[in-house]
Amino acid sequence: MGRREVISRDDPRARNLSLTIEYDGSGFAGWQLQPGQRTVQGALEAALAVVCRHPVVLRVAGRTDAGVHAWAQRAHFFSTAELTCDRILRGVNALSGAEVKVVAVEEMPTDWDARRDASGKVYVYRLLARPEPSALLAGRTWHVPWPLDVEAMQAELAGLPARCDWSAYCAADGSDPNTVKDLRSATLGWEPHDVMGLRFEGSGFLKQMVRILAGTLVEVGLHKRDRGSMVAARDSGARAAAGRTAPPEGLYLEKVLYA
Amino acid sequence: MGRREVISRDDPRARNLSLTIEYDGSGFAGWQLQPGQRTVQGALEAALAVVCRHPVVLRVAGRTDAGVHAWAQRAHFFSTAELTCDRILRGVNALSGAEVKVVAVEEMPTDWDARRDASGKVYVYRLLARPEPSALLAGRTWHVPWPLDVEAMQAELAGLPARCDWSAYCAADGSDPNTVKDLRSATLGWEPHDVMGLRFEGSGFLKQMVRILAGTLVEVGLHKRDRGSMVAARDSGARAAAGRTAPPEGLYLEKVLYA
Repeated sequence: MGRREVISRDDPRARNLSLTIEYDGSGFAGWQLQPGQRTVQGALEAALAVVCRHPVVLRVAGRTDAGVHAWAQRAHFFSTAELTCDRILRGVNALSGAEVKVVAVEEMPTDWDARRDASGKVYVYRLLARPEPSALLAGRTWHVPWPLDVEAMQAELAGLPARCDWSAYCAADGSDPNTVKDLRSATLGWEPHDVMGLRFEGSGFLKQMVRILAGTLVEVGLHKRDRGSMVAARDSGARAAAGRTAPPEGLYLEKVLYA
Repeated sequence: MGRREVISRDDPRARNLSLTIEYDGSGFAGWQLQPGQRTVQGALEAALAVVCRHPVVLRVAGRTDAGVHAWAQRAHFFSTAELTCDRILRGVNALSGAEVKVVAVEEMPTDWDARRDASGKVYVYRLLARPEPSALLAGRTWHVPWPLDVEAMQAELAGLPARCDWSAYCAADGSDPNTVKDLRSATLGWEPHDVMGLRFEGSGFLKQMVRILAGTLVEVGLHKRDRGSMVAARDSGARAAAGRTAPPEGLYLEKVLYA
Protein backbone atom coordinates (compact mmCIF):
# COMPACT_ATOMS: atom_id res chain seq x y z
CA MET A 1 0.00 0.00 0.00
CA GLY A 2 1.28 3.45 -0.81
CA ARG A 3 1.05 6.37 1.59
CA ARG A 4 -1.66 8.89 1.03
CA GLU A 5 0.13 12.07 1.91
CA VAL A 6 2.65 14.21 0.12
CA ILE A 7 5.99 13.96 1.90
CA SER A 8 7.01 17.16 3.67
CA ARG A 9 10.55 18.45 3.87
CA ASP A 10 10.12 18.25 7.66
CA ASP A 11 9.74 14.48 7.58
CA PRO A 12 13.00 13.20 9.13
CA ARG A 13 13.15 10.37 6.57
CA ALA A 14 12.51 12.66 3.57
CA ARG A 15 15.14 12.97 0.87
CA ASN A 16 15.16 16.07 -1.36
CA LEU A 17 15.31 14.75 -4.94
CA SER A 18 16.19 16.94 -7.90
CA LEU A 19 15.02 16.00 -11.39
CA THR A 20 16.45 17.15 -14.71
CA ILE A 21 13.69 16.78 -17.28
CA GLU A 22 13.53 16.77 -21.06
CA TYR A 23 10.23 17.14 -22.89
CA ASP A 24 8.68 17.62 -26.30
CA GLY A 25 6.02 20.20 -25.46
CA SER A 26 3.94 19.58 -28.60
CA GLY A 27 1.43 17.28 -26.97
CA PHE A 28 1.21 19.01 -23.59
CA ALA A 29 -0.91 21.87 -22.27
CA GLY A 30 2.28 23.24 -20.70
CA TRP A 31 4.09 22.34 -17.50
CA GLN A 32 1.53 23.19 -14.88
CA LEU A 33 -1.04 20.71 -13.60
CA GLN A 34 -4.53 21.48 -14.92
CA PRO A 35 -7.57 19.30 -14.36
CA GLY A 36 -8.55 17.39 -17.48
CA GLN A 37 -5.45 18.45 -19.42
CA ARG A 38 -2.32 16.54 -20.35
CA THR A 39 0.53 18.42 -18.68
CA VAL A 40 4.21 17.66 -18.08
CA GLN A 41 3.78 18.07 -14.33
CA GLY A 42 0.77 15.75 -14.35
CA ALA A 43 2.55 13.04 -16.35
CA LEU A 44 5.61 13.14 -14.08
CA GLU A 45 3.73 13.31 -10.78
CA ALA A 46 1.59 10.33 -11.79
CA ALA A 47 4.66 8.26 -12.72
CA LEU A 48 6.57 9.31 -9.58
CA ALA A 49 3.64 8.41 -7.34
CA VAL A 50 3.66 4.86 -8.71
CA VAL A 51 7.43 4.50 -8.36
CA CYS A 52 7.71 6.12 -4.92
CA ARG A 53 4.41 4.73 -3.61
CA HIS A 54 3.34 8.08 -2.17
CA PRO A 55 1.74 11.16 -3.77
CA VAL A 56 4.25 13.60 -5.26
CA VAL A 57 4.01 17.34 -5.84
CA LEU A 58 6.81 18.76 -7.97
CA ARG A 59 8.21 22.23 -7.48
CA VAL A 60 9.60 23.45 -10.80
CA ALA A 61 12.33 25.95 -11.65
CA GLY A 62 10.05 27.72 -14.12
CA ARG A 63 6.74 26.84 -15.72
CA THR A 64 6.62 26.59 -19.52
CA ASP A 65 3.63 27.27 -21.78
CA ALA A 66 1.76 24.79 -23.94
CA GLY A 67 3.93 23.69 -26.88
CA VAL A 68 7.24 24.85 -25.35
CA HIS A 69 10.05 22.29 -25.17
CA ALA A 70 12.78 21.67 -22.58
CA TRP A 71 16.17 20.01 -22.82
CA ALA A 72 16.86 20.40 -19.10
CA GLN A 73 14.00 21.66 -16.96
CA ARG A 74 14.63 21.29 -13.22
CA ALA A 75 12.21 20.36 -10.44
CA HIS A 76 12.37 18.76 -7.02
CA PHE A 77 10.27 16.84 -4.52
CA PHE A 78 10.59 15.09 -1.17
CA SER A 79 10.41 11.34 -0.85
CA THR A 80 10.67 8.64 1.78
CA ALA A 81 10.98 5.92 -0.87
CA GLU A 82 13.90 3.59 -0.19
CA LEU A 83 15.07 3.55 -3.79
CA THR A 84 18.32 4.63 -5.39
CA CYS A 85 18.25 7.68 -7.67
CA ASP A 86 18.93 5.38 -10.61
CA ARG A 87 15.95 3.17 -9.75
CA ILE A 88 13.69 6.22 -9.57
CA LEU A 89 15.00 7.46 -12.94
CA ARG A 90 14.38 4.12 -14.63
CA GLY A 91 11.00 3.65 -12.99
CA VAL A 92 9.69 7.08 -13.96
CA ASN A 93 10.95 6.75 -17.52
CA ALA A 94 9.18 3.41 -17.90
CA LEU A 95 5.88 5.11 -17.02
CA SER A 96 6.21 8.70 -18.25
CA GLY A 97 5.48 8.21 -21.96
CA ALA A 98 7.82 8.98 -24.87
CA GLU A 99 7.43 12.75 -24.77
CA VAL A 100 8.79 13.40 -21.28
CA LYS A 101 11.93 11.79 -19.89
CA VAL A 102 13.90 12.31 -16.70
CA VAL A 103 17.59 12.56 -17.59
CA ALA A 104 18.96 12.89 -14.06
CA VAL A 105 17.85 12.29 -10.48
CA GLU A 106 20.09 13.62 -7.70
CA GLU A 107 19.80 13.82 -3.94
CA MET A 108 20.21 17.40 -2.72
CA PRO A 109 20.53 19.04 0.70
CA THR A 110 17.15 19.38 2.44
CA ASP A 111 16.98 23.14 1.94
CA TRP A 112 17.77 23.07 -1.81
CA ASP A 113 14.95 24.55 -3.89
CA ALA A 114 14.76 24.17 -7.67
CA ARG A 115 13.08 27.55 -8.12
CA ARG A 116 14.48 29.76 -5.39
CA ASP A 117 18.07 28.61 -5.82
CA ALA A 118 18.14 29.04 -9.60
CA SER A 119 20.57 31.84 -10.46
CA GLY A 120 19.47 32.05 -14.07
CA LYS A 121 18.06 30.33 -17.12
CA VAL A 122 19.06 29.82 -20.72
CA TYR A 123 16.39 29.74 -23.41
CA VAL A 124 16.90 29.23 -27.14
CA TYR A 125 14.24 30.28 -29.61
CA ARG A 126 14.65 28.38 -32.90
CA LEU A 127 13.25 29.53 -36.19
CA LEU A 128 13.37 27.91 -39.60
CA ALA A 129 14.61 30.74 -41.82
CA ARG A 130 13.93 29.53 -45.36
CA PRO A 131 11.01 29.72 -47.80
CA GLU A 132 10.21 25.99 -47.77
CA PRO A 133 8.57 24.25 -44.84
CA SER A 134 10.28 21.32 -43.12
CA ALA A 135 8.91 17.88 -42.29
CA LEU A 136 11.54 17.05 -39.67
CA LEU A 137 11.49 20.45 -37.94
CA ALA A 138 7.72 20.97 -37.88
CA GLY A 139 6.56 21.51 -34.29
CA ARG A 140 10.20 22.07 -33.32
CA THR A 141 10.77 25.50 -34.91
CA TRP A 142 8.82 28.61 -35.96
CA HIS A 143 8.79 28.70 -39.75
CA VAL A 144 9.61 32.22 -41.00
CA PRO A 145 9.52 31.94 -44.80
CA TRP A 146 10.35 35.59 -45.57
CA PRO A 147 13.89 36.96 -46.03
CA LEU A 148 15.38 38.27 -42.79
CA ASP A 149 17.91 41.07 -42.33
CA VAL A 150 20.23 39.08 -40.09
CA GLU A 151 22.65 41.95 -39.51
CA ALA A 152 19.85 44.19 -38.28
CA MET A 153 18.69 41.42 -35.95
CA GLN A 154 22.17 40.90 -34.55
CA ALA A 155 22.66 44.61 -33.95
CA GLU A 156 19.30 44.84 -32.21
CA LEU A 157 20.04 41.83 -30.01
CA ALA A 158 23.39 43.28 -28.97
CA GLY A 159 21.66 46.33 -27.49
CA LEU A 160 19.18 44.39 -25.40
CA PRO A 161 21.06 42.96 -22.40
CA ALA A 162 20.41 45.01 -19.27
CA ARG A 163 19.23 44.70 -15.71
CA CYS A 164 15.97 46.62 -15.83
CA ASP A 165 12.20 46.44 -15.84
CA TRP A 166 11.08 44.14 -18.69
CA SER A 167 7.31 44.77 -18.38
CA ALA A 168 7.10 45.70 -22.07
CA TYR A 169 8.10 42.11 -22.91
CA CYS A 170 5.64 40.42 -20.59
CA ALA A 171 2.27 38.83 -21.39
CA ALA A 172 -0.70 40.91 -20.21
CA ASP A 173 -1.60 38.23 -17.65
CA GLY A 174 1.91 37.87 -16.23
CA SER A 175 1.84 37.47 -12.44
CA ASP A 176 5.50 37.88 -11.40
CA PRO A 177 5.58 40.91 -9.07
CA ASN A 178 9.28 41.37 -9.75
CA THR A 179 9.50 42.68 -13.32
CA VAL A 180 13.17 43.62 -12.97
CA LYS A 181 15.31 40.94 -14.61
CA ASP A 182 18.95 40.85 -15.61
CA LEU A 183 19.16 39.84 -19.27
CA ARG A 184 22.83 38.85 -19.39
CA SER A 185 23.19 37.92 -23.04
CA ALA A 186 21.20 37.74 -26.26
CA THR A 187 22.87 36.19 -29.31
CA LEU A 188 22.05 34.79 -32.72
CA GLY A 189 23.61 31.62 -34.12
CA TRP A 190 23.03 29.19 -36.96
CA GLU A 191 22.34 25.47 -36.76
CA PRO A 192 22.09 22.97 -39.63
CA HIS A 193 19.16 23.10 -42.07
CA ASP A 194 18.68 26.91 -41.95
CA VAL A 195 17.74 26.97 -38.31
CA MET A 196 18.44 30.30 -36.60
CA GLY A 197 18.87 29.99 -32.83
CA LEU A 198 18.23 33.03 -30.63
CA ARG A 199 19.91 32.40 -27.29
CA PHE A 200 18.87 34.35 -24.19
CA GLU A 201 20.54 34.04 -20.81
CA GLY A 202 19.21 35.91 -17.81
CA SER A 203 18.51 35.92 -14.10
CA GLY A 204 14.88 35.15 -14.84
CA PHE A 205 12.23 35.69 -17.49
CA LEU A 206 8.72 37.13 -17.34
CA LYS A 207 5.73 35.30 -18.80
CA GLN A 208 6.24 34.87 -22.58
CA MET A 209 9.25 37.22 -22.42
CA VAL A 210 11.43 35.15 -24.76
CA ARG A 211 8.58 34.64 -27.23
CA ILE A 212 7.83 38.39 -27.31
CA LEU A 213 11.56 39.15 -27.72
CA ALA A 214 11.76 36.64 -30.62
CA GLY A 215 8.57 37.88 -32.27
CA THR A 216 9.62 41.52 -32.01
CA LEU A 217 13.11 40.72 -33.28
CA VAL A 218 11.66 39.02 -36.37
CA GLU A 219 9.72 42.24 -37.05
CA VAL A 220 13.09 44.04 -37.04
CA GLY A 221 14.47 41.41 -39.42
CA LEU A 222 11.51 41.95 -41.75
CA HIS A 223 11.98 45.76 -41.62
CA LYS A 224 8.55 46.14 -40.08
CA ARG A 225 10.16 47.90 -37.13
CA ASP A 226 13.01 50.38 -36.91
CA ARG A 227 16.39 49.44 -35.57
CA GLY A 228 16.71 50.50 -31.94
CA SER A 229 12.98 50.16 -31.39
CA MET A 230 13.36 47.10 -29.19
CA VAL A 231 15.39 49.01 -26.62
CA ALA A 232 12.96 51.93 -26.89
CA ALA A 233 10.06 49.53 -26.29
CA ARG A 234 11.86 48.03 -23.30
CA ASP A 235 12.46 51.46 -21.77
CA SER A 236 8.84 52.52 -22.34
CA GLY A 237 7.57 49.67 -20.19
CA ALA A 238 4.50 49.38 -22.44
CA ARG A 239 3.56 45.97 -23.84
CA ALA A 240 2.00 47.73 -26.85
CA ALA A 241 5.42 49.11 -27.80
CA ALA A 242 6.83 45.60 -28.29
CA GLY A 243 5.85 43.29 -31.14
CA ARG A 244 4.05 40.02 -31.62
CA THR A 245 4.47 36.94 -29.48
CA ALA A 246 6.31 34.22 -31.42
CA PRO A 247 4.59 30.81 -31.36
CA PRO A 248 5.53 28.37 -28.59
CA GLU A 249 6.90 25.55 -30.78
CA GLY A 250 10.20 27.37 -31.39
CA LEU A 251 11.03 27.80 -27.70
CA TYR A 252 13.36 25.55 -25.70
CA LEU A 253 14.34 25.82 -22.03
CA GLU A 254 17.97 24.79 -22.50
CA LYS A 255 19.29 24.95 -18.97
CA VAL A 256 18.58 26.20 -15.46
CA LEU A 257 21.65 27.71 -13.82
CA TYR A 258 22.57 27.23 -10.16
CA ALA A 259 25.37 29.37 -8.77
CA MET B 1 -11.52 17.56 -65.31
CA GLY B 2 -8.11 16.09 -64.83
CA ARG B 3 -6.53 13.71 -67.32
CA ARG B 4 -6.65 10.04 -66.57
CA GLU B 5 -3.28 8.94 -67.81
CA VAL B 6 0.21 9.21 -66.40
CA ILE B 7 2.21 11.63 -68.56
CA SER B 8 4.95 9.94 -70.57
CA ARG B 9 8.36 11.46 -71.23
CA ASP B 10 7.48 11.13 -74.93
CA ASP B 11 4.60 13.58 -74.64
CA PRO B 12 5.87 16.68 -76.50
CA ARG B 13 4.33 18.94 -73.85
CA ALA B 14 5.79 17.01 -70.92
CA ARG B 15 8.18 18.71 -68.54
CA ASN B 16 10.58 16.61 -66.47
CA LEU B 17 10.19 17.82 -62.87
CA SER B 18 12.67 16.99 -60.14
CA LEU B 19 11.59 17.02 -56.49
CA THR B 20 13.78 17.34 -53.41
CA ILE B 21 11.85 15.82 -50.54
CA GLU B 22 12.15 15.90 -46.76
CA TYR B 23 10.28 13.43 -44.57
CA ASP B 24 9.89 12.17 -41.05
CA GLY B 25 9.68 8.45 -41.69
CA SER B 26 8.13 7.59 -38.30
CA GLY B 27 4.56 7.42 -39.53
CA PHE B 28 5.21 5.87 -42.95
CA ALA B 29 5.52 2.28 -44.14
CA GLY B 30 8.57 3.42 -46.13
CA TRP B 31 8.88 5.18 -49.46
CA GLN B 32 7.33 2.67 -51.82
CA LEU B 33 3.64 2.62 -52.67
CA GLN B 34 1.84 -0.29 -51.00
CA PRO B 35 -1.91 -0.83 -51.11
CA GLY B 36 -3.58 0.03 -47.81
CA GLN B 37 -0.41 1.48 -46.29
CA ARG B 38 0.61 5.06 -45.64
CA THR B 39 3.76 5.60 -47.72
CA VAL B 40 5.78 8.65 -48.69
CA GLN B 41 5.33 7.89 -52.39
CA GLY B 42 1.58 7.49 -51.92
CA ALA B 43 1.20 10.77 -50.01
CA LEU B 44 3.20 12.69 -52.61
CA GLU B 45 1.60 11.14 -55.69
CA ALA B 46 -1.88 11.86 -54.30
CA ALA B 47 -1.01 15.50 -53.63
CA LEU B 48 0.73 15.92 -57.02
CA ALA B 49 -2.25 14.44 -58.88
CA VAL B 50 -4.55 17.07 -57.37
CA VAL B 51 -2.14 19.92 -58.10
CA CYS B 52 -1.21 18.80 -61.63
CA ARG B 53 -4.68 17.44 -62.49
CA HIS B 54 -3.28 14.22 -63.93
CA PRO B 55 -2.10 10.99 -62.31
CA VAL B 56 1.54 11.03 -61.24
CA VAL B 57 4.02 8.20 -60.80
CA LEU B 58 7.25 9.19 -59.07
CA ARG B 59 10.60 7.64 -59.86
CA VAL B 60 12.81 7.88 -56.80
CA ALA B 61 16.59 8.00 -56.38
CA GLY B 62 16.46 5.27 -53.75
CA ARG B 63 13.67 3.70 -51.75
CA THR B 64 13.85 3.96 -47.96
CA ASP B 65 12.45 1.49 -45.40
CA ALA B 66 9.64 2.09 -42.93
CA GLY B 67 10.75 4.54 -40.22
CA VAL B 68 13.75 5.90 -42.17
CA HIS B 69 13.97 9.70 -42.55
CA ALA B 70 15.18 11.92 -45.39
CA TRP B 71 16.50 15.47 -45.47
CA ALA B 72 16.82 15.49 -49.25
CA GLN B 73 15.41 12.50 -51.11
CA ARG B 74 15.18 13.02 -54.88
CA ALA B 75 12.49 11.90 -57.31
CA HIS B 76 11.09 12.99 -60.66
CA PHE B 77 7.97 12.81 -62.80
CA PHE B 78 6.62 14.14 -66.07
CA SER B 79 3.85 16.72 -66.22
CA THR B 80 1.88 18.72 -68.72
CA ALA B 81 0.53 21.02 -66.00
CA GLU B 82 0.91 24.69 -66.90
CA LEU B 83 2.13 25.66 -63.46
CA THR B 84 5.38 27.21 -62.30
CA CYS B 85 7.69 25.07 -60.18
CA ASP B 86 6.93 27.34 -57.23
CA ARG B 87 3.17 26.83 -57.63
CA ILE B 88 3.66 23.07 -57.68
CA LEU B 89 5.83 23.24 -54.56
CA ARG B 90 3.27 25.30 -52.66
CA GLY B 91 0.35 23.22 -53.89
CA VAL B 92 1.91 19.89 -52.93
CA ASN B 93 2.98 21.15 -49.51
CA ALA B 94 -0.56 22.36 -48.77
CA LEU B 95 -1.82 18.81 -49.35
CA SER B 96 1.03 16.50 -48.34
CA GLY B 97 0.60 16.53 -44.55
CA ALA B 98 3.12 17.73 -41.97
CA GLU B 99 5.44 14.73 -42.19
CA VAL B 100 6.46 15.05 -45.85
CA LYS B 101 7.44 18.32 -47.51
CA VAL B 102 8.84 19.15 -50.92
CA VAL B 103 11.74 21.56 -50.47
CA ALA B 104 12.54 22.12 -54.17
CA VAL B 105 10.92 21.61 -57.56
CA GLU B 106 13.13 22.06 -60.63
CA GLU B 107 12.63 21.54 -64.33
CA MET B 108 15.25 19.20 -65.74
CA PRO B 109 16.24 18.06 -69.27
CA THR B 110 13.87 15.39 -70.61
CA ASP B 111 16.41 12.61 -70.27
CA TRP B 112 17.36 13.39 -66.65
CA ASP B 113 16.60 10.48 -64.33
CA ALA B 114 16.62 10.80 -60.53
CA ARG B 115 17.80 7.22 -60.05
CA ARG B 116 20.04 6.46 -63.01
CA ASP B 117 21.85 9.80 -62.95
CA ALA B 118 22.64 9.72 -59.23
CA SER B 119 26.39 9.41 -58.77
CA GLY B 120 26.16 8.67 -55.08
CA LYS B 121 24.32 9.09 -51.82
CA VAL B 122 25.09 10.30 -48.33
CA TYR B 123 23.44 8.63 -45.35
CA VAL B 124 23.87 9.52 -41.69
CA TYR B 125 23.00 7.04 -38.97
CA ARG B 126 22.35 8.84 -35.67
CA LEU B 127 22.52 7.19 -32.30
CA LEU B 128 21.88 8.59 -28.86
CA ALA B 129 24.97 7.51 -26.92
CA ARG B 130 24.06 8.07 -23.28
CA PRO B 131 22.38 6.05 -20.52
CA GLU B 132 19.22 8.19 -20.29
CA PRO B 133 16.52 8.16 -22.94
CA SER B 134 15.52 11.39 -24.71
CA ALA B 135 12.07 12.89 -25.22
CA LEU B 136 13.07 15.18 -28.08
CA LEU B 137 15.18 12.61 -29.94
CA ALA B 138 12.84 9.62 -29.59
CA GLY B 139 11.97 8.26 -33.05
CA ARG B 140 14.86 10.32 -34.46
CA THR B 141 17.82 8.32 -33.10
CA TRP B 142 18.70 4.79 -31.97
CA HIS B 143 19.18 4.86 -28.22
CA VAL B 144 22.32 2.94 -27.24
CA PRO B 145 22.51 3.26 -23.44
CA TRP B 146 25.71 1.23 -22.95
CA PRO B 147 29.24 2.70 -22.94
CA LEU B 148 30.83 2.64 -26.39
CA ASP B 149 34.51 2.36 -27.28
CA VAL B 150 34.53 5.30 -29.66
CA GLU B 151 38.18 4.88 -30.65
CA ALA B 152 37.59 1.26 -31.67
CA MET B 153 34.59 2.36 -33.71
CA GLN B 154 36.56 5.09 -35.48
CA ALA B 155 39.41 2.71 -36.30
CA GLU B 156 36.96 0.15 -37.65
CA LEU B 157 35.16 2.74 -39.78
CA ALA B 158 38.44 3.96 -41.25
CA GLY B 159 39.14 0.51 -42.68
CA LEU B 160 35.78 0.09 -44.37
CA PRO B 161 35.80 2.28 -47.49
CA ALA B 162 36.38 0.21 -50.62
CA ARG B 163 34.95 -0.55 -54.01
CA CYS B 164 33.94 -4.18 -53.60
CA ASP B 165 31.12 -6.66 -53.15
CA TRP B 166 29.08 -5.64 -50.11
CA SER B 167 26.78 -8.71 -50.01
CA ALA B 168 27.69 -9.36 -46.37
CA TYR B 169 26.04 -6.04 -45.48
CA CYS B 170 22.83 -6.62 -47.44
CA ALA B 171 19.43 -7.77 -46.18
CA ALA B 172 18.63 -11.38 -47.10
CA ASP B 173 15.84 -10.20 -49.41
CA GLY B 174 17.92 -7.59 -51.23
CA SER B 175 17.17 -7.51 -54.96
CA ASP B 176 19.93 -5.32 -56.41
CA PRO B 177 21.83 -7.57 -58.87
CA ASN B 178 24.86 -5.31 -58.64
CA THR B 179 26.31 -5.91 -55.18
CA VAL B 180 29.55 -4.07 -55.98
CA LYS B 181 29.41 -0.59 -54.47
CA ASP B 182 32.06 2.04 -53.89
CA LEU B 183 31.92 3.08 -50.24
CA ARG B 184 33.86 6.33 -50.47
CA SER B 185 33.91 7.42 -46.86
CA ALA B 186 32.74 6.32 -43.43
CA THR B 187 33.22 8.73 -40.54
CA LEU B 188 32.03 9.33 -37.00
CA GLY B 189 31.12 12.77 -35.63
CA TRP B 190 29.34 14.25 -32.64
CA GLU B 191 26.26 16.42 -32.59
CA PRO B 192 24.69 18.19 -29.60
CA HIS B 193 22.96 16.19 -26.84
CA ASP B 194 25.25 13.11 -27.07
CA VAL B 195 24.19 12.23 -30.60
CA MET B 196 26.80 10.25 -32.53
CA GLY B 197 26.46 10.59 -36.30
CA LEU B 198 27.85 7.86 -38.55
CA ARG B 199 28.24 9.32 -42.03
CA PHE B 200 28.49 7.06 -45.08
CA GLU B 201 29.07 8.28 -48.61
CA GLY B 202 29.07 5.88 -51.51
CA SER B 203 28.15 5.22 -55.11
CA GLY B 204 25.11 3.30 -53.93
CA PHE B 205 23.91 1.19 -51.04
CA LEU B 206 22.38 -2.28 -50.85
CA LYS B 207 19.16 -2.95 -48.97
CA GLN B 208 19.66 -2.11 -45.25
CA MET B 209 23.41 -1.75 -45.87
CA VAL B 210 23.80 1.35 -43.69
CA ARG B 211 21.70 -0.13 -40.91
CA ILE B 212 23.76 -3.34 -40.90
CA LEU B 213 27.00 -1.30 -40.95
CA ALA B 214 25.74 0.77 -38.00
CA GLY B 215 24.50 -2.26 -36.06
CA THR B 216 27.75 -4.15 -36.60
CA LEU B 217 29.83 -1.10 -35.68
CA VAL B 218 27.98 -0.75 -32.38
CA GLU B 219 28.90 -4.38 -31.62
CA VAL B 220 32.55 -3.36 -32.11
CA GLY B 221 31.97 -0.38 -29.78
CA LEU B 222 30.50 -2.72 -27.16
CA HIS B 223 33.48 -5.14 -27.51
CA LYS B 224 31.10 -7.87 -28.66
CA ARG B 225 33.13 -8.16 -31.85
CA ASP B 226 36.84 -7.98 -32.52
CA ARG B 227 38.46 -5.03 -34.21
CA GLY B 228 38.99 -5.73 -37.88
CA SER B 229 36.04 -8.09 -38.00
CA MET B 230 33.94 -5.72 -40.09
CA VAL B 231 36.42 -5.81 -42.95
CA ALA B 232 36.72 -9.58 -42.53
CA ALA B 233 32.93 -9.89 -42.70
CA ARG B 234 32.85 -7.69 -45.80
CA ASP B 235 35.47 -9.82 -47.54
CA SER B 236 33.69 -13.06 -46.60
CA GLY B 237 30.58 -11.99 -48.47
CA ALA B 238 28.43 -13.81 -45.87
CA ARG B 239 25.58 -11.92 -44.21
CA ALA B 240 26.02 -14.12 -41.14
CA ALA B 241 29.52 -12.72 -40.65
CA ALA B 242 28.16 -9.20 -40.16
CA GLY B 243 26.18 -8.07 -37.12
CA ARG B 244 22.69 -6.93 -36.27
CA THR B 245 20.61 -4.53 -38.31
CA ALA B 246 20.27 -1.21 -36.46
CA PRO B 247 16.67 0.06 -36.16
CA PRO B 248 15.34 2.34 -38.91
CA GLU B 249 14.62 5.42 -36.78
CA GLY B 250 18.29 6.43 -36.61
CA LEU B 251 18.76 6.52 -40.40
CA TYR B 252 18.65 9.66 -42.55
CA LEU B 253 19.11 9.97 -46.29
CA GLU B 254 21.04 13.25 -46.21
CA LYS B 255 21.69 13.88 -49.87
CA VAL B 256 21.64 12.34 -53.33
CA LEU B 257 24.68 13.29 -55.38
CA TYR B 258 24.61 14.09 -59.10
CA ALA B 259 27.94 14.43 -60.87
